[in-house]
Order: sequence, then structure tokens, then C-alpha cells
Amino acid sequence: MELDEPVNPEQANVMPGGPEDPRPSRWIRVRQLMDNMGIDALLLSHGADLPWLSGYEAMPLERLTMMVLPADGDATLVVPALEAPRVVSDAGLFDIRPWREDEDPVEIVAALLSSGRPMKLAISDRTWADALLALQRRIPSASWSLASRVTGPLRAVKDAQEIETLAAAAEAADRVAACLMGGEISLIGRSEAEVSAEIADRLLSEGHSRVNFAIVASGPNSASPHHEPGRRRIAPGDPVVCDFGGTFPSVSGVGPGYCSDITRTVVTGKPPGQFAEVYEVVRVAQERGVSAACVGTTCEGADRASREVIEEAGYGKAFFHRTGHGIGIEEHEAPYLVAGNQDPLAEGNAFSVEPGVYLDGAFGIRIEDIVVTEAQGPRRLNSADHRLAIVDH
Amino acid sequence: MELDEPVNPEQANVMPGGPEDPRPSRWIRVRQLMDNMGIDALLLSHGADLPWLSGYEAMPLERLTMMVLPADGDATLVVPALEAPRVVSDAGLFDIRPWREDEDPVEIVAALLSSGRPMKLAISDRTWADALLALQRRIPSASWSLASRVTGPLRAVKDAQEIETLAAAAEAADRVAACLMGGEISLIGRSEAEVSAEIADRLLSEGHSRVNFAIVASGPNSASPHHEPGRRRIAPGDPVVCDFGGTFPSVSGVGPGYCSDITRTVVTGKPPGQFAEVYEVVRVAQERGVSAACVGTTCEGADRASREVIEEAGYGKAFFHRTGHGIGIEEHEAPYLVAGNQDPLAEGNAFSVEPGVYLDGAFGIRIEDIVVTEAQGPRRLNSADHRLAIVDH
Repeated sequence: MELDEPVNPEQANVMPGGPEDPRPSRWIRVRQLMDNMGIDALLLSHGADLPWLSGYEAMPLERLTMMVLPADGDATLVVPALEAPRVVSDAGLFDIRPWREDEDPVEIVAALLSSGRPMKLAISDRTWADALLALQRRIPSASWSLASRVTGPLRAVKDAQEIETLAAAAEAADRVAACLMGGEISLIGRSEAEVSAEIADRLLSEGHSRVNFAIVASGPNSASPHHEPGRRRIAPGDPVVCDFGGTFPSVSGVGPGYCSDITRTVVTGKPPGQFAEVYEVVRVAQERGVSAACVGTTCEGADRASREVIEEAGYGKAFFHRTGHGIGIEEHEAPYLVAGNQDPLAEGNAFSVEPGVYLDGAFGIRIEDIVVTEAQGPRRLNSADHRLAIVDH
Repeated sequence: MELDEPVNPEQANVMPGGPEDPRPSRWIRVRQLMDNMGIDALLLSHGADLPWLSGYEAMPLERLTMMVLPADGDATLVVPALEAPRVVSDAGLFDIRPWREDEDPVEIVAALLSSGRPMKLAISDRTWADALLALQRRIPSASWSLASRVTGPLRAVKDAQEIETLAAAAEAADRVAACLMGGEISLIGRSEAEVSAEIADRLLSEGHSRVNFAIVASGPNSASPHHEPGRRRIAPGDPVVCDFGGTFPSVSGVGPGYCSDITRTVVTGKPPGQFAEVYEVVRVAQERGVSAACVGTTCEGADRASREVIEEAGYGKAFFHRTGHGIGIEEHEAPYLVAGNQDPLAEGNAFSVEPGVYLDGAFGIRIEDIVVTEAQGPRRLNSADHRLAIVDH
């Protein structure tokens, strides 16, 4: 009988034990931090904390999956019985407690937490409100905080294997960007949705296991940063903001995948007035943001470095989003390059630098790369050209 | 300048006002129920409550989107400024309050709720824990419950347009099932993942706007109900459980889409011993479950009707999941056909009936249709054949 060998690591949801397995050291660091912070247990459901620690990702459905991870004591993954065959606890890091349809998983979690004293619990940020409210009702003496207080700073510092995967993801996205900028992807006369679908297909062909988004915002739509690609047909002279990314399998061949995220703005023929000037402002702002992203620079400092260029050019109000977000298993995670975030960048942080200018009713421009802060300075993982590309068809 | 006319209603995120717009009556019913239940405000973020009421779906990202819907008083959608251009408040149902990157959206929500007295708040079930904990900290006097107490019973009763969309979705899924059972989709020698990808492509070709899942579980993997399709190559004589569905655009051309969900189990040649007998048990159990799903039958009664057939055949322990789940904008929603749920089925309820038998190490079988409870009795939306299909290639 053939073994079930999943086709890619994301589908595997497991990582084999062994010298390359990053999980055991993550558990040690998490427990150390919990101990320092006086947190009695982590409760991990939806989101990336669970796969980062265990290799297993909760299904995005209503039956509760929850890892109960005490600071001291054995961890238990409470999982719906019908999903238990998906879980492989191969590294001895946790037990599995499948729950049947006639059991209440909240009771099972509560029983695993019974300590006889008020507990400090930290729950994963993306756990759904239905689970949190039920747990609060069942364990009224507990105090609650977010698991990201523990996992956030640890997950934000990528190890060599994670950076290698992020680099491979970025290179795959670069190849799609090169097709866009080189005219291999036709634009004029096609709808945004059609171009978005082609970009998505190409992300998969280039090795991504999943497409997370493929924004194509043309003409005046380019002034909407999170525009949903629609029926609008791209016309000659349109600016077209393309912002896309997916999840790329870990280069180790095991464990959860990591995200790509790149933006390039192209133009289909002669651009509208003011466009070339603003493009140059955004290009320089992006360059400055990247250059500033050294070890020790604060997150808001990197944001400021990029933003100043745009403000000085008189477009400050038209750059109304943060400069960047961390990236890893999740497409957006710590650290966030935003005013007010005084955390210093550390070696191994990976994040986007993506300033933009959006002129309502006219056009928008955004340029984005993924950057890793290394000891010797910032390292761009994307290498697609930053010069304005004119696509004439 | 061409208008942005999104290619499908899901992308539109809006529904035009007018005689066919189902939203205003939903708001009235929601507010009546809130009044009956003494709920001061609904807070709607991730999940289907928000698009059901407003046409707008929160992006699955970390910036807070939240509809503040007081029982009396104007409703406000608090939304990240960079996503505000996506929102169209065309029916005058709510105001929009975009928040800038240097604002705290929790403060904005709290200010909209300031009443000077302790409030009873109901939050959407899939809101993330980070938002709920922040709101609880900011409004310590409030008491919290789930929005589904209000929206669940209302969303569970589908109107004619919703049922028409669910039927169109089911027919599209039926066409893919017919290809599977008729041998148009090759099985032997291909991996589960390859077959899953083909099913996903065909769901899109048949009109779905999104694929939600495409389980292909072959040979012994078929005994794992939520198996992740992997590298295992399908061999002659394998049972193959295929459970798939997607989101189908509303037949009205506007508003959020609705889900399909169908399971058929086929076999590639001569089935393993016991298989044909168990298949017949599951087929009859599914038939009984459907027949029982009349107005007034309790949800657990419908579950029981199906389960009894399997228990009487001696496979009770091998049917370890509920018989079905409601379906609509979400792939799983109320009503759930499960022991302990004494809610009676009502006219307009739409749900799956999907009994299964899973024999660990050997094989599994599941058959699933979507059913609507109508005044004159249960109506199957799926019509794909229930007889065992043998696919010889």
C-alpha cells in the first residue's frame, strides 16, 4: 500500500523530526518567553502560530482546533476527530486529543487548563470570537492576552531556511513581474480580472502552491490601493498597478510555506500628465525606505525615511498607508513599518517596503519589494526592475 | 472613462438598491430581533453576516473592518482608509468611517458605542480574537455575546433568490460529479492532488467564482473524512471519495455568492470486499436523511434518521461525524444536523445530508447532497446519480 506523500509541504502540514527540524528550538524559546512573561498557557487556533510551532494548520472551519501549550507540562492538540488523521505528531512535541461530535471541545480545553488558580492565558490573534467568548465563559477566573506577545517577536526573526524560502518566493514573483514589465502579459483591451487571472496562473507555474492575491488596478482604479480587479478594460495610456503574491513551499521540502508579495506599476503607452514625475518620486521613496532598513533603525524610522521623500515632493497626503508589513507564513505579520512603532529592526526581520501615491480620480503608483535586514545592511529579495516599464499592447 | 464594473458579484461586494434588493428587509428583521433580545449593537467583522447585510465583505487581513449596527441609531462601517474605495453604500443603509494608519480603529468603534450605560454587544462569530480582546479592554462595562444569536436564525431561512442561487451552484457541481462518475475525469495512475486540481478547474469552468475545497481521498485515505489530497497515486480497485464545492455568483447578478458542496464515492474497478455492501448502507442512510428533512423535524431527528440505518447495519462507530451542516454564503453555517440540536427544520433551511462510514486502514464511503426544506417536503438540489459508479481508467 502506497504511503500518502503529500504533493507539497503545505499540504503535508507536518515536518519530520531530525537535525533540520526547526520546531524543537521554537518550543524552547516560546516556553522561555512565556516564563519571563508569566503566561501559564498558549491557546493556538487559526493563524500561523500553530503551523510555525507544530507543522499543523487548523482548517478554516467552525469545529474548534486548539493547541493547549502550558509553560510547563505537556502540550495537547485538541482537534475534531474527523480531522485527526491529518495530524502527524512526529517529533513528540504534543499529544493529540480528538473530540467527537457529541463532545464539547471547550470543555476539553478547559479540563486541560485546570490548575486550581487564576491563569494567565494567551490566545492566538486570529482565533475566532465564538471560541474566545466560550472559553471566557467557561474559565471566568482567567485573564486573557494575545499569543502574538510571545510568538510575534520570535516569528519576526527568520532563520536561514526561512529566508531562503522567502528569497525563492520573491524570485518566483520576480519572474512574473518580468513578464508583466516585458510585455509578455498583454494588457490593452483586456479586463483587470483577466490580467489578474493570468498573473495568478503564472504565480502557480513559477512554483507557488497557492495564490493569495493579484491586484490589477488600471486607470483611475489605480488610485485605490486594495482595488478588486474587475471588468474595466485596460486602455492605451493607462497606469496599471499590479500587486501580487502567493505562498511558496519551504525550500527544505517540509513545513509551512512562506509568502511572496511584489508591486510594480506599468503604463500602457504615453502616461497621463504628472505621471512620470510622480513615478520618480515613488521610486526614490522606495529606494530610501529600503536603504534605511538597517539593524537598529526603528520601524517608524524606516517608514519616515520613505515618507519624507513623498512629503517633500508635495504628495504627503496622497500616501495614506504605512510603508510596509512583515512577511513570513502570513502575508502580513510583524514588524509593521508604521508611524508609532518604535521597535528597532533586528537581523532576520523580513518585510515589504511599498510606498505609494494615490491621486483620486486620476491615477495611483506603488512600488514594492521584500527586504531582509541583515547584519551588513538591508537585502532586497526582489530584483525586478524599478524603472518605469511601458507596455504597448 | 469606463466605470469599474466588477466581473462577478462576489468581487463587486455591493448590491444595487431597488425593488430586488434583499438588504433593507434584512436590516429590519435584524433590528426587530435585537430589540426582542435586548441587544444594543451588533459588531460585524470577518464572516458572512457583514456581506449578508451590507454586500461588503471584510478583507481577511489584520486591519480592522467593523460594522457598528445599533438597535436604534445609524449604522457605521469602520474601514481602513485604503480599502474605503471598495465600499459602496448605495442603499443608504450605513455610513462609512474610513480610518487612517495613525488612528486606532478600536477607539473609533468605542466612540460610536458610547451610551453612558453598560451595553449588550453581539460580535460576529468569526471576528478575530485580537479585535475582541481590544474592544473588551476598551469597553470593560459591556457584556458580550455572538452576533449569530441574531443573524443565525435569519440567515438560515433562505429567500427565493438565495435558493435559486444554491440550486444553480448545485447544478454546476452536479455537472462536475457527472464527469467524475462518467469517467471523463481519469483516475487510475494519477495522484489525488492532480485529480483535485482538475475538479477545481472544472468547478470554475462550470461557473463558480471560487473553489472552496476539492477533497480526493483514495484507497485507505478514503477513511479520513477531511483528507488533504496528496501524492498517492490512484490504483485499480481503489475507492475514491471526492467531496468538493465552491462559491457561485448570485443569480441576481449582484450580492455575495452562495456555496456548492457535493460528495460522491466512486471505485476504480473491482471494489474491495465489503465495499459494495457498505456503499448500499450509506446510500440508504443518505436517502433516509433526506426524506426525514421536513418542516418541523428536529435537526437531531434528521441526523438520527440517517444514523439509524448505519447503526442497524453495525457500522455506527464508523460514522463519527454529524449528518450535515447548513450552507449559504458560508460553506458551513446553521442549521447543523447533529445530536443535541433540537431546533426544528423550517421552510427555507438549506443544508447538506452526508452520512459516511470510515473503516480505518481499509476504506471510507460518503454520499452528500444539498437539500432545502420546502413546505411540501425536502427538495434535493443535487441530482447526480447515487448508484455506485465504477471508473475503469
